[in-house]
Amino acid sequence: MSFKEGDYVLIVHKDRKYLRKLVKGMSLNIRGHTIHFQDIVGKDEGQKIGEFFVFSPTLEDIILLGFERKTQIVYPKDAFYIAFKLGIKPTDRVLEFGTGSGAMSAVLSFLAKEVWTYEADTNFYNNALKNWERFGLCYNVKAFNENFLSAFVEENSFDACFVDVKEPWEYLEKVWKVLKGGKVCAFVLPTTNQVSKLLSHMQAFFADLQVFEILLRHYKTNPERLRPYDQMIAHTAYVVFGRKRM
Amino acid sequence: MSFKEGDYVLIVHKDRKYLRKLVKGMSLNIRGHTIHFQDIVGKDEGQKIGEFFVFSPTLEDIILLGFERKTQIVYPKDAFYIAFKLGIKPTDRVLEFGTGSGAMSAVLSFLAKEVWTYEADTNFYNNALKNWERFGLCYNVKAFNENFLSAFVEENSFDACFVDVKEPWEYLEKVWKVLKGGKVCAFVLPTTNQVSKLLSHMQAFFADLQVFEILLRHYKTNPERLRPYDQMIAHTAYVVFGRKRM
Amino acid sequence: MSFKEGDYVLIVHKDRKYLRKLVKGMSLNIRGHTIHFQDIVGKDEGQKIGEFFVFSPTLEDIILLGFERKTQIVYPKDAFYIAFKLGIKPTDRVLEFGTGSGAMSAVLSFLAKEVWTYEADTNFYNNALKNWERFGLCYNVKAFNENFLSAFVEENSFDACFVDVKEPWEYLEKVWKVLKGGKVCAFVLPTTNQVSKLLSHMQAFFADLQVFEILLRHYKTNPERLRPYDQMIAHTAYVVFGRKRM
Amino acid sequence: MSFKEGDYVLIVHKDRKYLRKLVKGMSLNIRGHTIHFQDIVGKDEGQKIGEFFVFSPTLEDIILLGFERKTQIVYPKDAFYIAFKLGIKPTDRVLEFGTGSGAMSAVLSFLAKEVWTYEADTNFYNNALKNWERFGLCYNVKAFNENFLSAFVEENSFDACFVDVKEPWEYLEKVWKVLKGGKVCAFVLPTTNQVSKLLSHMQAFFADLQVFEILLRHYKTNPERLRPYDQMIAHTAYVVFGRKRM
Repeated sequence: MSFKEGDYVLIVHKDRKYLRKLVKGMSLNIRGHTIHFQDIVGKDEGQKIGEFFVFSPTLEDIILLGFERKTQIVYPKDAFYIAFKLGIKPTDRVLEFGTGSGAMSAVLSFLAKEVWTYEADTNFYNNALKNWERFGLCYNVKAFNENFLSAFVEENSFDACFVDVKEPWEYLEKVWKVLKGGKVCAFVLPTTNQVSKLLSHMQAFFADLQVFEILLRHYKTNPERLRPYDQMIAHTAYVVFGRKRM
Repeated sequence: MSFKEGDYVLIVHKDRKYLRKLVKGMSLNIRGHTIHFQDIVGKDEGQKIGEFFVFSPTLEDIILLGFERKTQIVYPKDAFYIAFKLGIKPTDRVLEFGTGSGAMSAVLSFLAKEVWTYEADTNFYNNALKNWERFGLCYNVKAFNENFLSAFVEENSFDACFVDVKEPWEYLEKVWKVLKGGKVCAFVLPTTNQVSKLLSHMQAFFADLQVFEILLRHYKTNPERLRPYDQMIAHTAYVVFGRKRM
Repeated sequence: MSFKEGDYVLIVHKDRKYLRKLVKGMSLNIRGHTIHFQDIVGKDEGQKIGEFFVFSPTLEDIILLGFERKTQIVYPKDAFYIAFKLGIKPTDRVLEFGTGSGAMSAVLSFLAKEVWTYEADTNFYNNALKNWERFGLCYNVKAFNENFLSAFVEENSFDACFVDVKEPWEYLEKVWKVLKGGKVCAFVLPTTNQVSKLLSHMQAFFADLQVFEILLRHYKTNPERLRPYDQMIAHTAYVVFGRKRM
Repeated sequence: MSFKEGDYVLIVHKDRKYLRKLVKGMSLNIRGHTIHFQDIVGKDEGQKIGEFFVFSPTLEDIILLGFERKTQIVYPKDAFYIAFKLGIKPTDRVLEFGTGSGAMSAVLSFLAKEVWTYEADTNFYNNALKNWERFGLCYNVKAFNENFLSAFVEENSFDACFVDVKEPWEYLEKVWKVLKGGKVCAFVLPTTNQVSKLLSHMQAFFADLQVFEILLRHYKTNPERLRPYDQMIAHTAYVVFGRKRM
């Protein structure tokens, strides 16, 4: 496949990556090297242009490099694992709140039939819509600019749920009601205090409670000097997980 | 949804989980507690029966507890992240070899239009087919009992590739040929020596090389005594990742 | 140096290690291989006897394999780092409570002029004394079978302090009093709840607060197949650290 | 104890630390706050002066903040564990090469009777001497500006050994000769390739081979929001460990 004007392209220069829209007259300059975007148009994915490789961005590239962030995002290392762990089937309807910057919605939308996502903050809500539109994502996502607590939602109507808000214990009873029996709900929280508080509230509503964190450790790719990078992201969020008990 | 005879059910007893088929007359006994399978039939997901909770198994439950293993499996912590990292779109055709016990094929099949998977070992091949059939998975997977090296495959016909064999460097040129330009290939390997060898062979065929490992750390869920479990799985595989350069 | 009767010897058989006292007529049997202790007497450290290597045990070997444990011990990975982090000088007097099984006292005694250690439980206290005596350790340790709270201790008389009790916040004011100005105190605690509670109490007494955990990851030593072990110890304790503010 | 001119002082301002010599007329300015060093003279350790706490530096503070680095240092997290793991007794003579910036020598000198350390590079050698002198360390260390390979050293004369050079396999036979039977030798190496190569050479000379890495994970100390820091040091070195076989 070859790139055409208006496409998003992942430009790789050694260890660094950039996600850019192919707009006429624009270019990217890195450490003395320049790639002009009109030189990418018509080229095939994977080609080398000067010092640069050009690729079509994956969902991970889009989330990490393309999405405008107005909130902390759910990182791909967490989002990808959680999405599958929710046990979503292609016929499923999934609930999410808060939408935040829309990263998790995009991931869920690949596995579910439809995703309903709630975001009370209008600024965040609009940003998420824009992120999805820009990259052609989330056609099966229904986004509501509304606090989930005040939303009208039918009981027993969701097959899975993902919650990313500061005080999830406030929402537990309602989540419990709208989830189908036995179905999975996942939460992300940055602090141990929040995890403790959530767990103590969950016991009445959920069973098979799980708490975990995912650590992603990158290695340098010199085959003669294989070793981890000096620095790593040591923490994004704790993930809490439960299944609706009846 | 309520369980009926023949269904697979996830039975949770405190920290332990069991995946069982609901066969008349059968039961499960754990530390002096018994659950008779005929008592599960007709019950809703999420119900408590005596000391036990009963749930419908997720894909992760099926892979970890339901699949017969004739090989080391790709663990969900790795499989779920890799599957999304491959950048698969719903219209994509994905290549996999070797099939092994079929865990990764099942994960890939949720994201791709179709998965072509190759396994030279007839014993493994049959086991994978059985695993999928038992749990109603992989309807969009074409499985070949054949070494990928000798298989006839059209060039530039796959949108992503996943490789789980001992000596992946033997296959690189062919993988390169059958992948479309710029597309992603991922490898799993247990040892650093293999990673080094693979990297040194990949440089000619792939760009944007990445190596990483994923660590999953579970916590005990007592809210008053939140702490990691004493033991964790410290290693499953290194993941190597590259994009086809043209 | 050669072994004589009554010595403690570390016997290594492939990946496994055993710490034994050389008593006439005794032997060790592992997977069909036997080493008779009279055959070790007179042999030099490092020699191979049949399938076994014999060594003089290090402090780590003694703590991990020789000490009788009536309590959870402070693991060498934590103890060795903490001991140095306390900033002990050869002229220093160090305070410890509770003594537990005596592992940390033994480590501290290598760096300090003297260690004063308090243990309220008589059973633990006697066990620690026995552990030290058996291996000739802790000649510069003064052990008290007494709760530190009720002990008479001079103010500003210790150069460092190590605390291993369940509710360390009960002791903070007294620890503060007996430590010299600016000196370091370290605590070990298994749960995040305890860490939070301790931190909230420490702020009035200590500055430069630090919390950390130490993870030790072992690799298999086959040079052709270098890789981490499958399992690791994922958690022993959180370490909390502060310096006495005036 | 109170500070006097010429002392080294650890100045703590919130999360940041600085190690400075108390020189008249000097001061430290951080984010709009200033501490004049003449105001520290005469103050006791642990006192608060404006926004700053002042402490006497520990060995860890000195290594991390005070030592001039001409080489990668052995980090305290590794150095402290290794030093004890070497099994050093107060009567022991320990061998080290290369000296590097002198951090490990300083740690070893706290446990051993004497440390003999070799450094071929004159620039590094002089820097290490200066580091020790500046902080009054290493009185029991004999430093040689000489490659260990060409040094005259008596056989069976060391009770432990620490090696920090790029190609340790070149030195194995000589290390073996000068170590006493059964005694411990530790190596630090940054890459897996070096670890593999070293292990393959060690098997003839050493038994009880071990390879490990130590990860230190820090937490933010807000008791209401306990959580790991976002970033951590993910890699310093692999540690290889063996005991001289006879």
